[in-house]
Amino acid sequence: MRTLALTVFLLAFITFTPLHAAVQTKIAEYKQGDQILEGYLAWDDSVTGPRPGVLVVHEWTGLGEYAKMRARKLAELGYIALAADIYGKGIRPATPQEAGAQAAIYKNNPKLMRDRVRAGLDVLRRESLCDPRRVAAIGYCFGGTCVLELARSGADVAGVVSFHGGLATSNPADAKNIRGKVLVLHGGDDPHVPLKDVEAFEEEMRAAGVDWQLVVYGGAVHAFTNPAAGNDKSRGAAYNAAADRRSWEAMKAFFAEIF
Amino acid sequence: MRTLALTVFLLAFITFTPLHAAVQTKIAEYKQGDQILEGYLAWDDSVTGPRPGVLVVHEWTGLGEYAKMRARKLAELGYIALAADIYGKGIRPATPQEAGAQAAIYKNNPKLMRDRVRAGLDVLRRESLCDPRRVAAIGYCFGGTCVLELARSGADVAGVVSFHGGLATSNPADAKNIRGKVLVLHGGDDPHVPLKDVEAFEEEMRAAGVDWQLVVYGGAVHAFTNPAAGNDKSRGAAYNAAADRRSWEAMKAFFAEIF
Repeated sequence: MRTLALTVFLLAFITFTPLHAAVQTKIAEYKQGDQILEGYLAWDDSVTGPRPGVLVVHEWTGLGEYAKMRARKLAELGYIALAADIYGKGIRPATPQEAGAQAAIYKNNPKLMRDRVRAGLDVLRRESLCDPRRVAAIGYCFGGTCVLELARSGADVAGVVSFHGGLATSNPADAKNIRGKVLVLHGGDDPHVPLKDVEAFEEEMRAAGVDWQLVVYGGAVHAFTNPAAGNDKSRGAAYNAAADRRSWEAMKAFFAEIF
Repeated sequence: MRTLALTVFLLAFITFTPLHAAVQTKIAEYKQGDQILEGYLAWDDSVTGPRPGVLVVHEWTGLGEYAKMRARKLAELGYIALAADIYGKGIRPATPQEAGAQAAIYKNNPKLMRDRVRAGLDVLRRESLCDPRRVAAIGYCFGGTCVLELARSGADVAGVVSFHGGLATSNPADAKNIRGKVLVLHGGDDPHVPLKDVEAFEEEMRAAGVDWQLVVYGGAVHAFTNPAAGNDKSRGAAYNAAADRRSWEAMKAFFAEIF
């Protein structure tokens, strides 16, 4: 009976105890052109072998704790994630004015934006733990715009996901280059991404025959996934717990399909 | 050792063998006013005790195999489902002309539409296997319109899901009565649900402060979940396997949240 009891206990333990996620992180320095960039890699070392890779592109404030947190959460899901650096090592805007000025550099120079995002993707793909045939990119606000531009550049990604990202582009015809699937997660009351941009985006995707999906979260404004955005919707940017949770689940379902 | 081996085998068997879904069905006759209605109940009798209930409202062709199949699939998920009958026992349109004529009766009489849907909800809620505090409604095409009207009537539902349903209403102010959450799954190229209706719907939900979500599936036209709709998008109604799968997953995630 003791053998039986022990066996029951051990099997129950093995069956019902999840492996403890062991997320590791490190700084990943890389270059695009002459610019040094400082990204942040995250992976779970209890997962063995190559796994899908996800690039995470930061908001207009530059690479900070928020995008790093998302990278760690992706690692917990079993992916290897690189929180990319678009602006450059040490360039971490401290005010909205500085953030706006940095973001404008790339919004006004789509080629540079695409090259910067692509540089991160290349770094991620070369990681030994990354399965180079299964990579995707997600981005928040400014980063959402970045990953859509990455897709329009013809980059070899299985998919891109924009969370409350800007949808406008100066090169809508480039949508014909898109090789992966596109998921846009949008706040229904986002004043920074007006209806005319949503409609133009839909028309762009339609004309190019892209595999696209758009989810509109009622009541959500800009930055709805970021607790640091606060709770005052009237400011145009605010956290929305339901839309945060739902959009993360939508991303997970999208990854389950593309990977 | 034989005890150990047997224990290991039995535990592995118990752990890894899913319970075989045992879906039961029966005809459910009920009335609304003087009209006899003939619905179809489905549940899994390997699930014990009360469970959430889901009302399924048919397309303009009336209650047929398609809505019954969806009811059985919901039963496999552990719910009790009633495929409602809106038109009446024996009223099963055989041609698009007949279907259009039947649908028009209810589209032109929103009160009657709401009463008919509500009658099915009441039947479902009274089933002993249904947890009356956890009920929702889904609908396809015409049925999508029906479940939105049900919500606008102030019915006590945890949520409603419209699959390629018509979004227009003659009583947009009634959105203030909506008590549950709303999920609309829409084909991005659906000629029967034009952009102006989508925008009016968003405005209606926004004005009433409803908890709403809209998912747009690129490339999908009307009836995208129904294999019988064929593959010719140019006809305005066609099956789209990706949008079918994605929308079903979206519904499952929605139910996981509301139940």
